[in-house]
Amino acid sequence: MMPRYKLTIEYDGSDFVGWQRQVNGPSIQAAVEAAIQRFCGAAVAVGAAGRTDAGVHALRQVAHADIAGKYPSTVVRDAINFHLRPQPIAVVAAEIAPAGFDARFSATARVYRYCIVNRVAPPTIARRRAWHVATRLNAAAMRRAAQGLVGHHDFTTFRSSACQARSPVRTLAHIGVARRGETIVITARARSFLHHQVRSMVGSLERVGAGKWPEAEILDALAARDRRRAGPTAPACGLYLVEVEYGA
Amino acid sequence: MMPRYKLTIEYDGSDFVGWQRQVNGPSIQAAVEAAIQRFCGAAVAVGAAGRTDAGVHALRQVAHADIAGKYPSTVVRDAINFHLRPQPIAVVAAEIAPAGFDARFSATARVYRYCIVNRVAPPTIARRRAWHVATRLNAAAMRRAAQGLVGHHDFTTFRSSACQARSPVRTLAHIGVARRGETIVITARARSFLHHQVRSMVGSLERVGAGKWPEAEILDALAARDRRRAGPTAPACGLYLVEVEYGA
Repeated sequence: MMPRYKLTIEYDGSDFVGWQRQVNGPSIQAAVEAAIQRFCGAAVAVGAAGRTDAGVHALRQVAHADIAGKYPSTVVRDAINFHLRPQPIAVVAAEIAPAGFDARFSATARVYRYCIVNRVAPPTIARRRAWHVATRLNAAAMRRAAQGLVGHHDFTTFRSSACQARSPVRTLAHIGVARRGETIVITARARSFLHHQVRSMVGSLERVGAGKWPEAEILDALAARDRRRAGPTAPACGLYLVEVEYGA
Repeated sequence: MMPRYKLTIEYDGSDFVGWQRQVNGPSIQAAVEAAIQRFCGAAVAVGAAGRTDAGVHALRQVAHADIAGKYPSTVVRDAINFHLRPQPIAVVAAEIAPAGFDARFSATARVYRYCIVNRVAPPTIARRRAWHVATRLNAAAMRRAAQGLVGHHDFTTFRSSACQARSPVRTLAHIGVARRGETIVITARARSFLHHQVRSMVGSLERVGAGKWPEAEILDALAARDRRRAGPTAPACGLYLVEVEYGA
């Protein structure tokens, strides 16, 4: 049996159609699979914990791949990275996966971060790496309003119409909102998320921060289970998959 | 007399020949001057505190420009930004300058930051925004060695052969080296720096961090006043002009 490797992958998603292989453009998955094939000579299917959308970034996406041959993990990491160049995708860690490991189904939590550059001037160094909101946002109001989303809820309101999950019920373990100078960072942790859930929640919280929605509107929108009650979905460029957990 | 504006400017220097106007490619200066001209209709010369090199970034470069007409500062900022789009250059603040203000000659200190991504895997999101050093660096050794550079010295060793400053003597007020996870951040503050001085000091400190130079080699190289004693000059992409001070 081929050894299964757990790969921790970082990428700048700006110029990709997303994690998942698609006919209409370059995907992270196709790039990683091609790099592994160039290294080991055989076609390989790579599965990931989070199918990030077009333009979404990752600091520690986790994937698995079954690779024929016994290589030290550092060789696997370095060889894939060699073949990934010059694409902005890198394996930051490779290791032999535990028995029965599946990057998607073994995951016990995902952590996403969303970055807003909140100032009048457009971002330069953070361009395509954050959402630019020129209106001054009240981060404390956003943080208070966000707490109503924590827990076990039907998140239909904050779900894309294209979402294929069977159930709209998810358990949001944590959501934090913090201002660091001109940047507002929103962190969300759950076992799993619905399609566009983080971006939809962020888009609604932005309405609260801008003073367009009262804080209670977040809870009312959630309770309505109606997509039309959500604020505009925040753009992909501000979103980062930052951690996937494989706990007990 | 035309009012003089103080402009605080952020830019991603990756695709520019540097601050200063040159015949061989796009400069930050030419972009800012063109944007101001499109806004106010007259040719304007813009002077800056630091003539950053090709590929060097700025978070708070400071420049001055004499602009005919009385505009609120926010209009000046927003109009220049409008005409700078889609280039990765933005005026983060504009204000009427004090009498006699010159961005370069009134400056009392410049602060530069240098970022190293210190891990085996190449950077993706930080690509072209940090120096990639795969060898594990000892940041504590770098910090200790760097302290020998603080003070009033002849920095001939850490000066580009193209440097046009009359004197190689400068006063380094502060140099810090800190590790934040996979990133090593070096901060240097002085009234002014020689051409390539920060990058040359960083390139030599990297030798110490990699264990290739003993810590005392930094002081020996400084005392030698000999460019051949410096380590390789660190690449431009890791350097940021982060602050210009106008103190008493």
